[in-house]
Amino acid sequence: MQNKVRIVLVNTSHPGNIGGAARAMKNMGLADLYLVGPKHYPSDDAVSRAAGASDILENAVVVDTLEEALADCQLVIGTSARERNIPWPLVDPRQAADLVFDEGLVTAFVFGREDRGLTNEELQRCNYHVHIPSVETFSSLNLGAAVQVIAYELRMKSLLMKDAPVVASKWDVPAANVEQIDYLLEHLEKVLVQTEFLDPNMPMQVMTRFRRLFQRSRLDQQELGMLRGMLTSMEKQMND
Amino acid sequence: MQNKVRIVLVNTSHPGNIGGAARAMKNMGLADLYLVGPKHYPSDDAVSRAAGASDILENAVVVDTLEEALADCQLVIGTSARERNIPWPLVDPRQAADLVFDEGLVTAFVFGREDRGLTNEELQRCNYHVHIPSVETFSSLNLGAAVQVIAYELRMKSLLMKDAPVVASKWDVPAANVEQIDYLLEHLEKVLVQTEFLDPNMPMQVMTRFRRLFQRSRLDQQELGMLRGMLTSMEKQMND
Repeated sequence: MQNKVRIVLVNTSHPGNIGGAARAMKNMGLADLYLVGPKHYPSDDAVSRAAGASDILENAVVVDTLEEALADCQLVIGTSARERNIPWPLVDPRQAADLVFDEGLVTAFVFGREDRGLTNEELQRCNYHVHIPSVETFSSLNLGAAVQVIAYELRMKSLLMKDAPVVASKWDVPAANVEQIDYLLEHLEKVLVQTEFLDPNMPMQVMTRFRRLFQRSRLDQQELGMLRGMLTSMEKQMND
Repeated sequence: MQNKVRIVLVNTSHPGNIGGAARAMKNMGLADLYLVGPKHYPSDDAVSRAAGASDILENAVVVDTLEEALADCQLVIGTSARERNIPWPLVDPRQAADLVFDEGLVTAFVFGREDRGLTNEELQRCNYHVHIPSVETFSSLNLGAAVQVIAYELRMKSLLMKDAPVVASKWDVPAANVEQIDYLLEHLEKVLVQTEFLDPNMPMQVMTRFRRLFQRSRLDQQELGMLRGMLTSMEKQMND
């Protein structure tokens, strides 16, 4: 299980928090850490707070963009403190752990900046948002503490799962990954502009809503192929 | 509830951890903090890591002995990493939260030293031991992270007791109904035949897979309208 869950930290300011996250991960049996544009890294503060989890830090992958961190993931869950304009599927940490184990997909948990979390655009790249149910008047957790809560719920679920589920649906086709969904949305946008359904000067929230829909559906590879094929057949008809 | 649960930290070495514990407490709605013989306290490090939970620190009670911290408590739960010589009632954090709410007693959670936890004598003062299920080869959590896990479970339990979802996604648009999905699929099939993506003499399972996809997605009315609008715009282009 543990090698199927990735922790992604976006633009972390304090390297001590990266160390704290690494320690929490190792305590709970996670190992796959991606750092998107960390402010100060590598750092002695990170190593010191990791307190023996320095292997997690050494193996951490540092990338420039969130897209790189997510490309091969099939399920993306972003931490969110706030209500959003467009409602998004929202779970608590226990439900998030259930999702990970029930769906069995390569999953990323994405954690935002210490001071302002994830941007709307970053949150829209997520299939789900997870909210740690803090009190409203003092809602912002320390980053390492937030990673600890998620990693703890994953660990609890993995231990509780040793009793196998009574029924399990076996999907016949692997899930699409983030990169494939991105290509599908680009293709769809191109076709929708051509059919004049989408006005590129007044895009409104159309593509965001399509993104939310296809991410929520957890498209499999065959469904993705069908949708791409449908779009291609439409282009052919229009361009004939 | 929250004023019935006390967090007791014994001989804490690093004041930053006291601050981290205070922040985790306040995030999760706890307020009652006792410090038994802290090594360095008060401390700027504690205030800095508390990040706004300085009221918890200001109201913290500093005492010399564990006995003083526990005198008025009715249930004492001590954190333990190790197996003990004499077996003691042992629970995981979720079971510990259940105990607190089921028994409704004034409860203390006792956390030991960063390097060696609680002594045998201290552990024997506890009604229960709670073990956070870390991996055996890297079992020692940061003190603030351990407080976070316990406080989180207490918070989850308090929210679950309300018989309402812990977090609720508020969808802004009603879900589509069966008839609307049926019309969408009819419309889609018509367009796909026209684009020659679908051969009506060899339909295979294409429409069944589209049906499964749209039903699984739990389409809302707006998404349905977008998909219908997309199909209509494609028909217009093809028939022009």
